[in-house]
Amino acid sequence: MKNIIKEHQAKIVDVKHGRNFTVVQPVNIYSCTFGDDCFVGPFVEVQKNVRVGDRSRIQSHSFVCELITIGNDCFIGHGVMFINDLFKKDGAPSYDPKDWKKTNIGNNVSIGSNSTILPVNICDNAVIGAGSVVTKDITVPGTYAGNPAKLLHEKEA
Amino acid sequence: MKNIIKEHQAKIVDVKHGRNFTVVQPVNIYSCTFGDDCFVGPFVEVQKNVRVGDRSRIQSHSFVCELITIGNDCFIGHGVMFINDLFKKDGAPSYDPKDWKKTNIGNNVSIGSNSTILPVNICDNAVIGAGSVVTKDITVPGTYAGNPAKLLHEKEA
Amino acid sequence: MKNIIKEHQAKIVDVKHGRNFTVVQPVNIYSCTFGDDCFVGPFVEVQKNVRVGDRSRIQSHSFVCELITIGNDCFIGHGVMFINDLFKKDGAPSYDPKDWKKTNIGNNVSIGSNSTILPVNICDNAVIGAGSVVTKDITVPGTYAGNPAKLLHEKEA
Repeated sequence: MKNIIKEHQAKIVDVKHGRNFTVVQPVNIYSCTFGDDCFVGPFVEVQKNVRVGDRSRIQSHSFVCELITIGNDCFIGHGVMFINDLFKKDGAPSYDPKDWKKTNIGNNVSIGSNSTILPVNICDNAVIGAGSVVTKDITVPGTYAGNPAKLLHEKEA
Repeated sequence: MKNIIKEHQAKIVDVKHGRNFTVVQPVNIYSCTFGDDCFVGPFVEVQKNVRVGDRSRIQSHSFVCELITIGNDCFIGHGVMFINDLFKKDGAPSYDPKDWKKTNIGNNVSIGSNSTILPVNICDNAVIGAGSVVTKDITVPGTYAGNPAKLLHEKEA
Repeated sequence: MKNIIKEHQAKIVDVKHGRNFTVVQPVNIYSCTFGDDCFVGPFVEVQKNVRVGDRSRIQSHSFVCELITIGNDCFIGHGVMFINDLFKKDGAPSYDPKDWKKTNIGNNVSIGSNSTILPVNICDNAVIGAGSVVTKDITVPGTYAGNPAKLLHEKEA
């Protein structure tokens, strides 16, 4: 018997969204929720149960996994990768969501391209420079960059 | 009234190019210019007004945004992200091109995979190691790597 | 005479695989070999002669180039880029495979998303944190992270 490849197709399925939702295909977005006036660029995957607020953009080549929440007026740059599995099961990935960790992105957050976001909380009005690796919660509005990301300067009042 | 998704499709549209232009679909490249003997790999986006010289290659998964110019005989690796918006509008992205910054890549420049290129000038004969984040102009031919990218060694004469 | 774009299409061609091989299109995988129970996510390229063992996963947005071998029970995260060309030809890429270097990934290796893997050997039971740039062989099982990647802690016995 010949082994057949189980071939699935990236698609838009079971997406709840507000008005003016724009997507550039091909994308793979499923069982997630977007507010009004959102944009998703090409070559993006957004997994199930992700929630994105209003007026937020997810640019090309980015990956948003389960257990991520993104607020309003956020800009997720190109090639940004979110993470929910810290390989705590003796270094191996876990396929049990109970082992995964949440990420919460506040409002007015801008994340530069090619950044990597470990499971953290990022407060409102944070700016993450391009190419950063965010390994810890960000609780003070300001600009952060580097691997691991560190505060460059607080947001001016 | 049901909200309809505004679904666009990644495509090749309004691209000027010389002879022997090879592309692996799917790509999203529009209103840009390539010289002779160029290659664009799959899952690439090249935005409008980008100009690329002769014999240059843009490998899979890369993103080249507006205001980027790339010279002759350049190699743009896989997953390379260019940037034109420094979030200077109080941390938010700007949708006004007047706020964006240019990047100029000279001739014979090789950029390693997963590198991130902030708006800079990179001189002829520069080599950027894989995974670098280039935050400043590069004016001396040589090999650069790291986050932020630093000179490893000058090019031998 | 009008110059015509030489347009190729990402595809699955000449792939040897065991039972239960799952792929999410679009992908570009050709002339490579997978064992049993493997998974390849969307927007992935796997080049010729790559060999992947049993029960290994290559997640979305990753690029696996020629001369890479991946063992059993490996997890290659999202946006991981492998490299075989160190630009040793005076900074320029080489199109002669004799100039390229091999990478060998052992068994039970987990590589975090957005990591960059220079041509190295990585031993069994290594964990590479997300956003890392691996520039040297990894010979001791443990967790590594950073740019360049360094040992965070050895694997507990």
